[in-house]
Formats: sequence, C-alpha cells, structure tokens
Amino acid sequence: MFHHVKDLQFNARVSRPDPRFANLLLEQFGGENGELAAAMQYFTQAFGAKAAHPDKYDMLMDIATEEFSHLEIVGATIQMLLKGVNGELKNAADSSEIMQVMDGKALKENIIHQALTANPQFVIITGGGVTPRNSQGIPWCASYVNSNGDLTVDLRTNLASESRAKLVYEHLMKFTDDPYIHETLSFLMTREVTHYKMFEAALNSIPDNFPPGVLAADPRFLQNTYNLSAGTVRGPWNEGEMPGLDKEFAYVADPVGQARETKGNTELPDLMKKELQDTEKLNKEMSGKKSGEEKKAEPRGVAQWSTYADPQD
Amino acid sequence: MFHHVKDLQFNARVSRPDPRFANLLLEQFGGENGELAAAMQYFTQAFGAKAAHPDKYDMLMDIATEEFSHLEIVGATIQMLLKGVNGELKNAADSSEIMQVMDGKALKENIIHQALTANPQFVIITGGGVTPRNSQGIPWCASYVNSNGDLTVDLRTNLASESRAKLVYEHLMKFTDDPYIHETLSFLMTREVTHYKMFEAALNSIPDNFPPGVLAADPRFLQNTYNLSAGTVRGPWNEGEMPGLDKEFAYVADPVGQARETKGNTELPDLMKKELQDTEKLNKEMSGKKSGEEKKAEPRGVAQWSTYADPQD
Amino acid sequence: MFHHVKDLQFNARVSRPDPRFANLLLEQFGGENGELAAAMQYFTQAFGAKAAHPDKYDMLMDIATEEFSHLEIVGATIQMLLKGVNGELKNAADSSEIMQVMDGKALKENIIHQALTANPQFVIITGGGVTPRNSQGIPWCASYVNSNGDLTVDLRTNLASESRAKLVYEHLMKFTDDPYIHETLSFLMTREVTHYKMFEAALNSIPDNFPPGVLAADPRFLQNTYNLSAGTVRGPWNEGEMPGLDKEFAYVADPVGQARETKGNTELPDLMKKELQDTEKLNKEMSGKKSGEEKKAEPRGVAQWSTYADPQD
Amino acid sequence: MFHHVKDLQFNARVSRPDPRFANLLLEQFGGENGELAAAMQYFTQAFGAKAAHPDKYDMLMDIATEEFSHLEIVGATIQMLLKGVNGELKNAADSSEIMQVMDGKALKENIIHQALTANPQFVIITGGGVTPRNSQGIPWCASYVNSNGDLTVDLRTNLASESRAKLVYEHLMKFTDDPYIHETLSFLMTREVTHYKMFEAALNSIPDNFPPGVLAADPRFLQNTYNLSAGTVRGPWNEGEMPGLDKEFAYVADPVGQARETKGNTELPDLMKKELQDTEKLNKEMSGKKSGEEKKAEPRGVAQWSTYADPQD
Amino acid sequence: MFHHVKDLQFNARVSRPDPRFANLLLEQFGGENGELAAAMQYFTQAFGAKAAHPDKYDMLMDIATEEFSHLEIVGATIQMLLKGVNGELKNAADSSEIMQVMDGKALKENIIHQALTANPQFVIITGGGVTPRNSQGIPWCASYVNSNGDLTVDLRTNLASESRAKLVYEHLMKFTDDPYIHETLSFLMTREVTHYKMFEAALNSIPDNFPPGVLAADPRFLQNTYNLSAGTVRGPWNEGEMPGLDKEFAYVADPVGQARETKGNTELPDLMKKELQDTEKLNKEMSGKKSGEEKKAEPRGVAQWSTYADPQD
Amino acid sequence: MFHHVKDLQFNARVSRPDPRFANLLLEQFGGENGELAAAMQYFTQAFGAKAAHPDKYDMLMDIATEEFSHLEIVGATIQMLLKGVNGELKNAADSSEIMQVMDGKALKENIIHQALTANPQFVIITGGGVTPRNSQGIPWCASYVNSNGDLTVDLRTNLASESRAKLVYEHLMKFTDDPYIHETLSFLMTREVTHYKMFEAALNSIPDNFPPGVLAADPRFLQNTYNLSAGTVRGPWNEGEMPGLDKEFAYVADPVGQARETKGNTELPDLMKKELQDTEKLNKEMSGKKSGEEKKAEPRGVAQWSTYADPQD
Repeated sequence: MFHHVKDLQFNARVSRPDPRFANLLLEQFGGENGELAAAMQYFTQAFGAKAAHPDKYDMLMDIATEEFSHLEIVGATIQMLLKGVNGELKNAADSSEIMQVMDGKALKENIIHQALTANPQFVIITGGGVTPRNSQGIPWCASYVNSNGDLTVDLRTNLASESRAKLVYEHLMKFTDDPYIHETLSFLMTREVTHYKMFEAALNSIPDNFPPGVLAADPRFLQNTYNLSAGTVRGPWNEGEMPGLDKEFAYVADPVGQARETKGNTELPDLMKKELQDTEKLNKEMSGKKSGEEKKAEPRGVAQWSTYADPQD
Repeated sequence: MFHHVKDLQFNARVSRPDPRFANLLLEQFGGENGELAAAMQYFTQAFGAKAAHPDKYDMLMDIATEEFSHLEIVGATIQMLLKGVNGELKNAADSSEIMQVMDGKALKENIIHQALTANPQFVIITGGGVTPRNSQGIPWCASYVNSNGDLTVDLRTNLASESRAKLVYEHLMKFTDDPYIHETLSFLMTREVTHYKMFEAALNSIPDNFPPGVLAADPRFLQNTYNLSAGTVRGPWNEGEMPGLDKEFAYVADPVGQARETKGNTELPDLMKKELQDTEKLNKEMSGKKSGEEKKAEPRGVAQWSTYADPQD
Repeated sequence: MFHHVKDLQFNARVSRPDPRFANLLLEQFGGENGELAAAMQYFTQAFGAKAAHPDKYDMLMDIATEEFSHLEIVGATIQMLLKGVNGELKNAADSSEIMQVMDGKALKENIIHQALTANPQFVIITGGGVTPRNSQGIPWCASYVNSNGDLTVDLRTNLASESRAKLVYEHLMKFTDDPYIHETLSFLMTREVTHYKMFEAALNSIPDNFPPGVLAADPRFLQNTYNLSAGTVRGPWNEGEMPGLDKEFAYVADPVGQARETKGNTELPDLMKKELQDTEKLNKEMSGKKSGEEKKAEPRGVAQWSTYADPQD
Repeated sequence: MFHHVKDLQFNARVSRPDPRFANLLLEQFGGENGELAAAMQYFTQAFGAKAAHPDKYDMLMDIATEEFSHLEIVGATIQMLLKGVNGELKNAADSSEIMQVMDGKALKENIIHQALTANPQFVIITGGGVTPRNSQGIPWCASYVNSNGDLTVDLRTNLASESRAKLVYEHLMKFTDDPYIHETLSFLMTREVTHYKMFEAALNSIPDNFPPGVLAADPRFLQNTYNLSAGTVRGPWNEGEMPGLDKEFAYVADPVGQARETKGNTELPDLMKKELQDTEKLNKEMSGKKSGEEKKAEPRGVAQWSTYADPQD
Repeated sequence: MFHHVKDLQFNARVSRPDPRFANLLLEQFGGENGELAAAMQYFTQAFGAKAAHPDKYDMLMDIATEEFSHLEIVGATIQMLLKGVNGELKNAADSSEIMQVMDGKALKENIIHQALTANPQFVIITGGGVTPRNSQGIPWCASYVNSNGDLTVDLRTNLASESRAKLVYEHLMKFTDDPYIHETLSFLMTREVTHYKMFEAALNSIPDNFPPGVLAADPRFLQNTYNLSAGTVRGPWNEGEMPGLDKEFAYVADPVGQARETKGNTELPDLMKKELQDTEKLNKEMSGKKSGEEKKAEPRGVAQWSTYADPQD
Repeated sequence: MFHHVKDLQFNARVSRPDPRFANLLLEQFGGENGELAAAMQYFTQAFGAKAAHPDKYDMLMDIATEEFSHLEIVGATIQMLLKGVNGELKNAADSSEIMQVMDGKALKENIIHQALTANPQFVIITGGGVTPRNSQGIPWCASYVNSNGDLTVDLRTNLASESRAKLVYEHLMKFTDDPYIHETLSFLMTREVTHYKMFEAALNSIPDNFPPGVLAADPRFLQNTYNLSAGTVRGPWNEGEMPGLDKEFAYVADPVGQARETKGNTELPDLMKKELQDTEKLNKEMSGKKSGEEKKAEPRGVAQWSTYADPQD
C-alpha cells in the first residue's frame, strides 16, 4: 500500500508564474517520456517479477514509488507556474481584462494572456491546473508503457526510457532561467541517470541475459547485414566482430540477388547443421531453467500476496 | 512524496488461477472507471485545491493515495489469477502442450488455453502479467480523468466516478465464486461508497455550491423544459418545483413553434428584467468572493510547495 | 426518428469573425465536456431505459435531442466566426496576402493570419469549417461518454457532466465581448443548469437510489476514513455523521498499522455479524426488485421497438 | 434544431436475443464505417456549405438527419438483441447461474454466457446496453470523419464512405438468419446505395469538379506512371488514355534511372512551357471563380444563421 | 521486399529554415490525409488483391511504393526546414539565446523561437526532427487507413483519399513562397491527381462495379429521398433520374407520416414483387461469380507468396 | 526513394489456414512491438542523423528498409492464414453455412467460424485481409515510435525495441506447429537479434555516449538509492560500484527523513563544490563538441537532400 507525505522529495520552488514553461513541463507530467509513464511502467513490471525475483520486484517498486514522487514534483511546479490563472478565471463576471488580451491590448505579462497562448485548455478546461496531457494536449496513454514479463527485456526497456526522460529534462532546462526550477530539473534529470545505472546493474546481475527472452538466435540468419539502402557505409555495425558474440558480421552486398539465389533464405548452404543442433539443445536447457525459476517460485494452492509479518523497514 | 509498504491494504487472496476473470478485472486496473482513473483524477484535482482549500487538498490526496493502494490490490489479484502463464511461456522450446490448445485438444483447464482465450495479449505481449488496459485491450487514457479547477465541479465529478466504480465492482462480483476474491471485491466496492459519502460531505460543506462554478443561471432560460421527443411523459423532471430552487419548471409543448415565435429565444416577454439585474449583481458578488479566495491564498513572490516543518502524522 | 428544422433553437449571431474564439469554442463542439458528448451520452443511455423506465427514456431522449440542437448552435457560431477563411483559401493561385502573414508583415486583422495562429488545421484541413475536435485538435472520442445501464448511476453521471459543461461555458464567456455570442453562451450555459435540475428531480423520483446500483455497502468497510496523506485535516468528510446514513465516519489514524493488525482488513472484530446478515437480506430483496422491474418490462417473443400507433405530440 | 419522433424510420424487430450479433452490429453504431460516422460527417460538412451552396447544405443536412435516424435503428436493434442481460445483472445477489457460465456448465443459450463471450463490456460496463464502440471495443473517434470545406472533395469522400458502409451491411447480413433483422439490414444497406446516388448526382451538378479543389494538375508531372514494384503488369491504369482527360499515361519503366537522369524530376525536357502557362491562367480563373462564390455568399456585417421566416416544410 | 535508393524521387530543396511551415507540412507526413496514410492504405489493400487480381495487386503495390517515396520527400523537406534546431539544442549548457526567446527579447528570426512557437515538441521531444504526428501533435493512427477486401470498395476509398490529399497540398502551397518548396509541392499534388486517374481507370476496368460489393440494392427502398430537414431544396439529387440507373428518385415530402403509414416501411404497396425476385436472382449470380473469382485463384495445399522465378523488371 | 521487388526476403509459406494464429500475428504487423513500429522508428530517426552522421543514417535506413520488408513477410503470412475467408464472404447471397456457425452447428474447421471467433473484424471489416491493428483491434499508433534527435538516445531506444520484438516472436512460435511458419518466425526473430547487435556496435562506436544526451549528471544527486518500498533488498543495484562510473551507490534508508533533514535535497553538505564545477566545465565542452558536430554538418544556403551523383551500389 502507498503512503503519502506532504513534503516533496525535492524542494520545488518557482520564482514567478510562467504558463508557457508550464505547458512545456506537461511533457514530463502527462507526456510519453514523463514521470507517469515511468512510474506506471515500473509499477506494472513489478507485479510480474514478485514471485520469482523478489529482489528485482523490490527495486522496481522502489523506483516506481520514486517516479510517483517525481510526478508530484513536476505537478507542483506546473501548478506554481500557473499561479493566478484560477483566481482570474473565478472572477467570472468581469472579463474586461481578458478582453484586452483577446484584443491584443493587454500587457504580455498578463497571466491569462500567457496561459491562453501557451495552452487554451489551461483557461477553458483545467482551470489553471495540471492535467495528464502532453505539451500539445494529447491525453496520456498506456501505450507509453511496456511491461513484458521478462526481466531481460523489461530492464532493457527501462534503460531506453530513462535515456529519453533524461534527454527531455536536458531540453527543458534550456527553456527557463528560473534558478529554482533549474535546480529541480537538475535533480530530476540526474535521478534518471541514477535509475539507468541501477537498471544496468540489475541486468548485469542476471546470468544468461542475452539474447533477451529464452531462445537463442537461429545461427543461419544471425550474421548477415544487408545493403538495403543503396550505397551502404561500412562500419563496426556491419563488419568485424559482433559485440560480445564470438561471430563476425557477414555483409550481403546484393540482398535482392541473395534472396533469389537462396529462394528467400530457405536454401542456404548446409554449414550450420551442428550449430543448429547446439542451438536447439541450448534452447531446451534455457527453457527448463527459466521456466523452472518461475514455476518453482509460485505458491501451490491458495495464493496470497502479502504476509503481514514483521514490520518492514 | 510517496512511500510504499509491501503489505496490501486488503489481504488479497486467490483460490485458483482464472485468466478469464483476470481479463474482466482489468477494467478496474486500466479501464475507464477503474482505480488508476480514480487515483489520477483525485491526484490532479488535489494540486489545484492546495492553495485555497488545504483541507480539501488533504482529503483529495488521502483518497488518491488510497486509490493507488487499491490499484495495487487489483493488480496483485490479476497477477495471482494468471499464475502459471509466465512459467509456461518461458518453456519456450517446448510447445507441445500449447499446440494441443491450438488444435482444440487440450483440457479446458490448461492455463495457456484459458489465457489465450481470455486475452491474446496475456500470452503474446504481457507475459502473463498485468497491464494498464481494459478488458478489451484499450490502453488506459487520460481522457478518463476530469479535473477542472473548481471544487463544486470536481466533487460532483467524483460522485459520478464513485458511482460508476461501485457498479463495476458489483457486476464483477457476479463473475467469480472464489470466496477470497469476493471478499476483496466487497472491500473495494464498499470503499467507493465511503468515498462517495466523503465527497458528498465535502460538497455540502461548501456554501454557495450551486450552480457549480461561479455564475448564476440566466433567469430567462432556466425554467423551460422542451417537448423535443414527441409524446413527452410528464413527471417531476418537467413539471412542478425545480428541486432546491424557488422556481417551477415551465413546459414548452411545441419547441419548434416557440423558437420561431421568439426568434430563437431572443424576443422573450420582458418579465425578467428585475431578476436579470439581480443575477448580474449576484454574479459580481460571487466573482469577488470566489476569486478572492484563490487570490488571497496564493503566496506572493517565490512560490514554495512544501515547508519541511514539523513531521506530519 | 429525427427531424430537422433549419431554424436554430437559439438565434445565434456573430458580430465579426474571430478564429481564436472559434478554436476555443471547439471545446463545446468536439471536446470532452461539449454538446456532442452530452448528446451521445443521453442518447445511448436512453436505449437501455426504454423498456423498464419509459418515462426516463422520454426525458433522456428529449434532452439528447436538445443537446444535438445545441451542437448545431455551437457549430453555426464557429462557422460564422470563421467567415472569410474558406473564400480566401479558394483563392488558391494568389498567396501574396498569405505570404505577408507568414512573413509577419500582415495586419493582425487578416483572417487567415488569425485562423492559422488559432488552429493550423483551420487552414490546412477543415477549409475554414467546424470539426469534431477540441481546442487542441484532439478528435472527439467515445471515451467521453458513460452509459452503464443503471439509472441511479447514469443520472449521477449526468449531474457531473452538466456541471462540467456549465463551467466550460462560464469560462468561454470571459473570452469574447461580442454581445451576440454572450447571449448565445448565456442561453447554452443556463440550459445545462436546467438539465442538471431535471436529472436531479428524476434521481429523486427513484426510491432506493443509494447506493447506486443494487448491492448495499459491506458494513465492515463502510465507515473508515484513512489518514493516508500524513497530516490529515479533520472535517465533515472524515468525522461526524455520514450524510444521509445513520452512521458515523471512523477515523483510522495509522492505516499501515491498521492493515497489519487486521491482516489486511480480514481479521476484524466480530461486531458486525448481525449487520452483515441484514445487508445480505437487503441485497436479495433489492436484487429481486430491480431485476424484476427489468424482466417484467421486457416483451416476450418477438421484440418490436415502435408501435406506429396514434400520432404523438 | 432537431426534433425526435419515437417511431423508428424502419420498423426494427428482433426474433430472439443474440449478443454475438449485437456485438457485430456495434460496427454500424460506433464503428469506423457506421451510422454515427456518416451522420457526423455530413453534419459537419453541411455547416461549411450553407452560405455558398444552400442547396447542397440542405441535401447534406437531410442525409445527416437520416443517418441519425439510422443510428437509432441500429441502436434499437442492438438493445433488443441484448434483451435479458440487464435484468440478469440486476439480480446482483444471486450469481449461481452465472457461475455455471464461468465454470462452463451453463447452457449455451444462457444470455449472460453469450453476452460475456461476445463482449466482456456488455456485462461489466454497459449493463447490457448499446455503446458507441466497435465490435472490438474501440471507442468511436472523430478521425473517422472527413470534412474539408470543398464540395468536390467532400462529395467524393462521401461516395467512398457510402461504399464502405454498404459493404459492411452486406457482410453483416451473412451472420444472422433472423428474418426481421434481415429486413432491417436490407433497408439500411439499400439506403447507403441511394445516398451514393444522391451524392453522385450532386457532384455531377457541379461544373469544374475535376480535379477536386481549385488548382489544375501540373502538366509536367501528370502523365507518368512508374514501374516501382518490379514486374509491373500493364493495364488501362498505366497505358492508354487517362479517363476523361485528353491525355495518355506515360509509362516510366525505370523510375530510379529516370529520377537520376532528370535530377529528381527537376530537369525535364522543355516541352510543356505553353501548357504550364495555360495551367497558370486556368488556376487564376478558377481561383477567382471559386473564391468569388464563397465571398459573395457571405453576409456583410453581423452574421445570423437562421431567419425564423415562414414556417418551412 | 523493399529496396532503398538515397536519391529522392523529386529533388527536394529548401531556401531557408521555416519551422512554422515544417509544422504545417507534418499534416502530409503524419496526418490523416498524408503520405503515410496513403502508403499504408494501398499496401494493406494489395495483400488481399494478390491472389485473384494480380494486376491490381501490382498497381496498388506500385502506388504504395511511390507514396513511401513521397513520405520520404516530405520528411526530407521538414528536416531541412528545421535546420539549426538540433545544433542549437545540443548546445545544452548555454541557454542565453533561448532565454531571450522565452523573455520575448529574441529576434523573430531565431530558429528556436520559431520552432518552439510552431510546435513545442520540436524542441522538447523530436530534437528538431520529423515525427509521424500531424500539425497539432496527434500521433498518426491506423484509423486513417481503410482496406476492406473488395476492389470496388477499396478503389472508391482511394479516389476519396487522393482527392483529400490533393486539396491539402493545394492549401499548403499558399503558406510558403519558397520557390523550391513550391516545385516540390506541385509535384506531390499532381501525383495525387495521377493516382486518382489510375484508380478511376482500374475501377472502370472492373465489370459489375456498382453497387460496390456483391449484393444489389433492395428495390423497395432504393428510390426514396426524404425531406428530413424541413424546407428541402429540389435538385438532381432528389428528383429526376438516378445517375446510371434506369430509375427515378421518389421524393417523400413527409417522412414521419410515411413511416407511420407504412408501419416503418414494412407495409409497402406490393408493386415490387417481380423486381425483388430479379434482385434475388442477380444476387445469387453475382455471389457465384465474385466468390468464384476468389476461390479459384487461391492455391490448394501449401500456400507460398513468392516464386523466386525469373528476375523481374 | 523506395523500390519494391515482389519476391519476399524470406520465402513465407503456410501449410493451412489458421485465422486464430493470423490474429496473434497481427501484433507484429500493427502492434506496439511490430514491424511497422520498427520500420517507422528507424525511418524517422534516419532523417535527423543524415547531416552530421551519414554513416548512421545509412545504417538506420538499411534497417528501416529491412523492417518494411519484414512487415511485408508478416502481412503475406497473415493473408495466407486467412485463405478462404474473402471467397466465403463474397458468396453474399448464401449464408446457410455461416448460420450453422452462428448456431454453433458448424464444424470447427469452418474458416468463417474460425475467423469470426479470432477477430470479428476479419469478417465484417477487413474482408479476410490484413490490417494495421493489433491482436485486440487497436489501430497502430505513432505513439509506439520514439525518435529524439540524439543518437545516444535513439540507439538505446532501438536496443529496447529489438528486445521486445524478439520476445514477441519467441512467444508467437509457441502458438503454431506449422513448420513453414516456424521457419519464418525463426528468421524474423533472429533478425531482431542481429539488429540489436548492429545498434550496440553503433552505440559503442560513439565516444562520450554516456550519459545519453549532452549534459553530465549533477554529482549531488547521482549516487543515492532510496528505500522507498519498505523492506528493500540490497543488491548490486543499490550498493557497491555504479557500473562503468568511478562512484558507489549511496543507500538512503529513510528517504522521508532525508528529505526533511535536507529541506528537500536543497541543503546538502557542501562536499561536491569541486565536482560541480568540473561538471559545469564538462557540460560546456560537450555542448561545444556535440553542437559543433551538428552545426558544421549542415549546409549553408539552399539545402538539398540528394546529389543524384554517381549511381550508388
């Protein structure tokens, strides 16, 4: 269960209202790389990890909880950046000031002018408040969340998510010179780097973590790189050793010709027989191992999530 | 900031796996009336309430936090209902059992058979885990959340949300005879009723809470009810006193004729002059009052969200 | 079946084009709280009500029809606010004027300049016309519509919808000083208040309308309010009488401790036995009653929707 | 404004409940080619047509109104196909029968069994009622609606929409042998054909209706057809006369080579000079004409939508 | 399989950066009528056509491939219009220039100012790059694609799609005076016209292409046009000959009355018996023919997509 | 520009129709981790890379093109798995066989029965063809695509995408025993592994690739790991060395206390001054370097995408 403390994890402060920056910051509240996306991703991944990997469950739930706390920091900052909007809207019977805005006669400092320009929904729908939408009004959507029931996949997904979230904070920092907000963003950006390292360490701690999932690659199709965009540049990604594997990239200069000659890669030279058999054997071993981990961990009979044992720290 | 305790608020237990019910239960995890929708709605409403209505902020954050805890209960139950799916999927090299499923030869008790039938993504995408989608695979979407910066509106929104959530739990209870799950659902359903009463009490505690928002109704257009669906039945909703107002419904039997006679309701008999003036005056008063509440509550100068004062209880 | 009369229910007029306000007004055409959402909500609710509650069916269809007529008023206003855009776009071979816009040299009064700034789709996609999208271009989506087959739920949903719609009109009125549009918005805003009162009266006319749905609350879990957001403020929503129930709120100061002590609320003191039995009995009675209402009302044999009997008024 | 008559345009009847067919039929209620999509498309197109093309406005509004009436027929049929579901759900305290469903012991004729299998939301969310979603639960979305402010485009859009709607009814007819529903579907399918013919006649009545929009095609790029999918089959679509134009298709056998030789189609032989000049002249004429039609039709000064003149027939 | 050549089909050039036009142009990259929508529509239609209509399959795949190439042209143009944005963003440690933008002190020529104003995601999310979203940030969505497994329907769908795409290019041309971009847009716009003519020719080459699909219209319901929007204007779309059919429109002046008199069109005068029988016979013939075409074309036994026969041209 | 060859890259074959597996396979056609998502992701990333990183541009375009070719393989397989559906649907006048399906009397081998059960849209909407939707009918959506204008971010995004795509193919392989399809899936699964290795090698070839983006982490906030989910398990992810950094994780056992003591992490011990200055200096250097790479690579004056120089290989 969750518990809430009114103090923020980071002491978010704002020097002055700025609806335009509030709108940009929505990307990290309700955007595709934002805190809600991160929180919900780790939270949903945690459920699947609990039985067989209680240590990773704990890590995922820790970070999910931190991301919910970051969501709160971002929301608080947005709300403070919109200071004055709600009060002005509630002055419903007197629109003289706003009409100056609509007529272009208002000072640019007018908060309603700024809010309206930044995001029409700030003044029509949200009443000057935060909303789980991005900087262009797209409602947050669970398509942003990936949770696939396999730690070697989920943790790699998380490395990518943290990378994007870090970049977005980096971009956001360019668009404000409020030193308080700079501090907040620096905190939030850095925490994404820390999480990256935590997920990396967790992935490293899993033996047999490549390829992601259970099955090995089919040796017949693994080494080819195809020249499909005429005029291919050669580099470490299509020649030399495949990183971490004991194999070399094989460059196919004429992929259309190769497809025809091999009847669509079904009539390949027969060199791989032994390797195929090894792969099959490996697949069975890995299936047994990974499947066993899950099955062994699951309780028999009635399932119960919590123990209500000794108080936890 | 949030803190997480591994024990659930309610001791969720499951007698036996049941992917079909797991799929139904997704409605309350990632569906339009589910716990994530409730949690995010009260959470976003809370930000706007904090300055001028710190007591309602606290109530909204309390209930939001409880809904996040309920989200966890629902997720845990779904995960337990899918016990066995992930282990079976990880047995990637041996599909003999699954193929019996696909060929219709498997026992109906086969867990993969049940999962595949209930929701194809359980076996292809989520790896037998929970996902913030509804029972038909629609990703959760922030369009389910309403937060409008006005407590008289937000609280009414919440009364409706709790009503729908309660009904969904009521429906769900019919589709399982697992006594443990029954208990869990009874707890969750009842909490929606409690929240309903809490929101009702909070709304009652706000003076001038009707009409929602600030402006009064325009007396010229308030009392009419139109017979627009030929053959209107008369009832308390179109005759007699308007509840809580000192006015009567006025029944317009021929709305097309009425529109023509009044030039589209712009040429009405002049009886309302005095009432219009009263309304205007009331609007100004209410604007001053409600706007003042907000403006007065907002800090001047640098805004800071938290105080880090005495530890809270 | 529907019939259409070219005269609007309200005589919508517009003093001068104003694409920016046209864009704001899209919220009430294709937005989440707009007229299409209202019309479709009451329209879909009406189908389910027809057999057992023909009087409420009539009311819902009446108001749905009025909302479709309001949708038309809003659309007509938007179209008039965009006067000139389509004509300018059709002058396809001469972009000299528009290029002054793009170069920032055009007068701010230029209609294309205004339209482009307000909403790029006005000039690229809709040809200066109305579109069922909101002020940020999000296409209208049926997720905005709630229809749950239970009048005590549906009517509460509608009270919330009308509250939000009323507030949006209130906000919109601040952003125009066109007196004609003010009149139109005052009419539309007030009709939401009237509908609110109609739905309220209809809900009041249903006996046994709380809790929404059929089942009573579980007495074991009903009265608790949890201090989940450290530092809870006490108020009528967590102390004293629960409104309309003959019970008091029970305040749980340490919810984590309480969960542990009660094994997640499953080991509660045994005081409620009698009340639980009463609840069960009540549930059976209510099930019989509400279920009976529906079943009795449904025709046996071939179902036919209309009677084509006496002409209706 | 709209008016509603309780009798349906077609006498929808249903022999017996059939939730599975109800689910299929949702495609025509809340699906991409359904009645709501059609109604909203013609309705939004009508606004833009009103000033300059009041006759087409009337036609669009006529057909929109008919589509709303068809939406009602489809909804009524779905509701009748779900007869019994709501009553069963309201029997909330007794789930004995449903549990037989969940355990696979229920008769296949059990209505809840059928509803749950057809669409889980029928029993959890909609209470056995209609919903503006498609057969897979996707909420209706305004992306289905195209309205572009140009009749030569809009009418062609409508020919396509009617074609798809007709096909969907044709498919649906295969999935029921209820003779009453067959009659209803035959009526609805045929009306799509009639509308197709009405839109075709309206398009034919517009002079200069090709190409759609205002500008003529650029003669330099008009005639080429490219062999981009190696091994092109020749047919009337890439050889011989271009239908209705006084030109021939020109077949480019080696498009990659052609792009290189012509520097990406920018260095073409200079044969088209005269034709280019003619095109430019034509563009100016057409711009003047089409733009003039719009501009001339728009009222000066205050805009008013309706006249409230003589009662219309 | 696809092959890519780095040269564009048209030599896209850009005189100077212009983020605002880049944003408008997104409509044709990730918008509802854009190149991705066209490419994916013809691509998915092609699969279904391949067995029975290999010539149309080839045409659809040809045009799909051209649309992918156009997508590349549009993307390249957007990228060039955003020149400078990414470099400026990567200058992450120095926001002095950007802050002048945020403070309104920057020159309007500043590229970040322009990008931020045009589309906040250009500077926060896409790093100054192209994105499959429209001019208002809506992610491209497969609801834009219609593919229905019937060529007489699909080709009509395509005529409409090409009409809309042509109009959008026409509109876009008004918003830039860069002569290079004008050339590019003129090429792209014209290709839509060519495709229109190709689809038209293909449709004409199919015998029995009306009505779309297989079944004939029901003669009892085909000829009526209803006066549903009071005050109907008469024109070729509701009087005289139905284009291409040997029938006349029949005008129903009072549709409500007609519905009542005919019991919802179920009690019609018996004149059509013979025609109904003819229709039924025709339906059987057409079913046999169209169904046969498909069935005959499908291979028996193992299905194989490609032949890897002689190299294709 | 793209070119298409009718032979598939892999010789996709299908032993017998299987609509259920066709539906599962839709995940890799129009699903979140499918081939369209991959193709569009690398394709959009490629545009941004072209100027400053032409070698990575080539790699991205190569792999994008291969993913489009895989999309075609998946689509072809789905189409072959649906063999017979379209022919049956076109037999529109005879529904005797289908009605046996609807009545539950049909053989389970009936293709329409299978298609209808697998996915109702196969028989109502797509005409037995492929569609860019996932296994639950959700239309493909560009939210699945991440492209952020920074190679160190984009390549990490791609590692995650390939991991997920690989896992989905692994899961799919369990649900068919058709040896031809097994071969196809083994090819497609393995290609994801190859792409993973290509992206990994490309990322390794970029110096200074951590942290992603430009700015270094803020040393004050980098090392902490918080015990936010009471009862944290210790492991390499929250103790010991941070992988690849010359720092250690610092474990915060009481994060709420820590936040209060440090006033929300703003009053930290002053040990980091020197490191902060170093970070700032590093940030400036990296900004200069990364920004310079982009700026230097962009052409001055008119931008042109292609050279049409020597034919490419």
